[in-house]
Amino acid sequence: MSPAKTIKPTPAASQVAGLPLPATLYWDGEAVMILDQRLLPGKTLYMACRDMRQVIYCIKTLAVRGAPAIGVAAAMGISLAAEGLSAKTPAAFRRQLKAKIETMRKARPTAVNLGWACDRILALVALAPGDIETMRRMIRRTSQLMLDEDIAVNQAIGQNGAKLIRKKKATVLTHCNAGSLATGGYGTALAPVWAAVQAGKQIAVIADETRPLLQGARLTAWECVAMGVPVRVAVDSAVGVIMSRGMVDLVIVGADRIAANGDVANKVGTFNVALQAARHGVPFYVAAPLSTVDLDTISGKDIPIEERDPGEVTAFGTCRVAARGAGALNFAFDVTPADLVSAIITEKGVLRPPYGESLAKAKALAKK
Amino acid sequence: MSPAKTIKPTPAASQVAGLPLPATLYWDGEAVMILDQRLLPGKTLYMACRDMRQVIYCIKTLAVRGAPAIGVAAAMGISLAAEGLSAKTPAAFRRQLKAKIETMRKARPTAVNLGWACDRILALVALAPGDIETMRRMIRRTSQLMLDEDIAVNQAIGQNGAKLIRKKKATVLTHCNAGSLATGGYGTALAPVWAAVQAGKQIAVIADETRPLLQGARLTAWECVAMGVPVRVAVDSAVGVIMSRGMVDLVIVGADRIAANGDVANKVGTFNVALQAARHGVPFYVAAPLSTVDLDTISGKDIPIEERDPGEVTAFGTCRVAARGAGALNFAFDVTPADLVSAIITEKGVLRPPYGESLAKAKALAKK
Repeated sequence: MSPAKTIKPTPAASQVAGLPLPATLYWDGEAVMILDQRLLPGKTLYMACRDMRQVIYCIKTLAVRGAPAIGVAAAMGISLAAEGLSAKTPAAFRRQLKAKIETMRKARPTAVNLGWACDRILALVALAPGDIETMRRMIRRTSQLMLDEDIAVNQAIGQNGAKLIRKKKATVLTHCNAGSLATGGYGTALAPVWAAVQAGKQIAVIADETRPLLQGARLTAWECVAMGVPVRVAVDSAVGVIMSRGMVDLVIVGADRIAANGDVANKVGTFNVALQAARHGVPFYVAAPLSTVDLDTISGKDIPIEERDPGEVTAFGTCRVAARGAGALNFAFDVTPADLVSAIITEKGVLRPPYGESLAKAKALAKK
Repeated sequence: MSPAKTIKPTPAASQVAGLPLPATLYWDGEAVMILDQRLLPGKTLYMACRDMRQVIYCIKTLAVRGAPAIGVAAAMGISLAAEGLSAKTPAAFRRQLKAKIETMRKARPTAVNLGWACDRILALVALAPGDIETMRRMIRRTSQLMLDEDIAVNQAIGQNGAKLIRKKKATVLTHCNAGSLATGGYGTALAPVWAAVQAGKQIAVIADETRPLLQGARLTAWECVAMGVPVRVAVDSAVGVIMSRGMVDLVIVGADRIAANGDVANKVGTFNVALQAARHGVPFYVAAPLSTVDLDTISGKDIPIEERDPGEVTAFGTCRVAARGAGALNFAFDVTPADLVSAIITEKGVLRPPYGESLAKAKALAKK
């Protein structure tokens, strides 16, 4: 599986949703352009993906990451696959495409948005009347629509979440990156920060660095600097001492999957932040689109937790840090139990416990 | 302040307390030899310190770290200072030495063992009858005695703590390094592991990597490998997901200072581990010599928490990882509230709540 060619962005990609941040991914003619987030904050370069395998490579290697962004990337990747199919009849096309979609579905296990995007294209193709070219066009248009929808949904999350930031000056702690880069644009956990700042509030961010891949130090801090929002990075371990000093007004994190009971799978370490927030009486909010809510997953116990290469833990870049002979555990996510979640900020409003009810109701509303 | 010359260890330093681990520090003629732990696990090299400023340099830069080791290093450093004083009368000698001791006391703020060592030498000199040379000899002998005592105390901690590991096969999670390297030898948190292994039990260790300076990945993992104890490194964030899977039988950590009420200052992140242990019903033990218990500190609120160079967080080695323009918070310690501590393992036995009583009683016993 060879990576795509890396190129500089077109000028149109240098801002997204009206913010001075680069596009996470976009269509450029026949190529899916994916910002290679592994190179940030040092370099802003895009991978020009011309087939689905290249998109899967980007997803697996975390060149593109974040549940909403992965969902859009999957749809775009499937569109590339649809272009390349050799099928001569609509039935054969549907059959071949289905196989491609199942390959895409396995790229990463935890984020439900990937499966959600796959299901959406599957449903589209099942219902599509026309010929092969019509189906190809519909898939491509849908992938673009999912990108546009994601940005609009995130802006709504921003408006809904900003209301929870009641003070004129506030400090928000976040874990990992659930900013513009984790989505089609604008962000989920950081969306209320951007919206509050645009509404004239003074917001400072504390960004957990988020080992092993440092999405907080590299990406969240970078977005904040670009947005002119004061940001301080801390090691993931410091959340207890920071909260015990009263330095945090509220926590907002993203989610990779929310179970029907409100348990939240998110980047490993989120559970610690939630426990400390509960201990210190700090509100702990999860910001996510309803596409991240999976009513078919009963509780956190049913969410598959990805285990990644131990080398991400034992080495830092190319430098081995752990003693030779030592093994490593590398769970990429954890599950924060619903009892620790103060509220879930969605595009349809702020959901409160009991989540069994509020999530089901919001999902039903979203379907209308 | 120039660092001391770096040299290879003498053969006698290649094992300590009967374990296949290098000496943390030792007297070699007129030099205090300090293992430069910043170079581990890559290189085993010692700094040959010939004056107190070089020892302070080692303490400040974490070439030597860990509360008990810092205590012994301080005593040895003061002995070097005593050698170098120009005083011609015992009174002038005491006055000059006192100034040196107060400089040493300020090297690092959180670990109480540093102040404890300073007070011990002060008391010795106040009571000493003789001439300057006698005082010099007494200080030097006391510094060696403190090293020997520390190792003996740690072996007792090991015996007392091993009784808490009831299963034949068990997994111990630890944070940072409270092994042989953090002490004069043998260790505190790892002492029960070594004692249990020597008693024929099968113990595996999960070592939190311990950002920002990775003492877990670099030092704890290295000690375990040298001791033939299976060890897996995990990011500090992973403690929640690891415990939720039932992978940990007990936690043992060290301490930099224990307040009279049982609140425990230890490496930043310990508080998270304790909260997760309580959430999952995993015993959370603190192993420390009684010299780490400070009855003059009423509660954790009264413990000064060292803030170190933000560059330790924003960079990794020589490579900047955080986005430019981002600040950083770098608290080196946190305070775990006493209610989360299942027991404190000391050389005088295993202390249980209420700690106000049990700590005072054990300290009184130790004075006899």
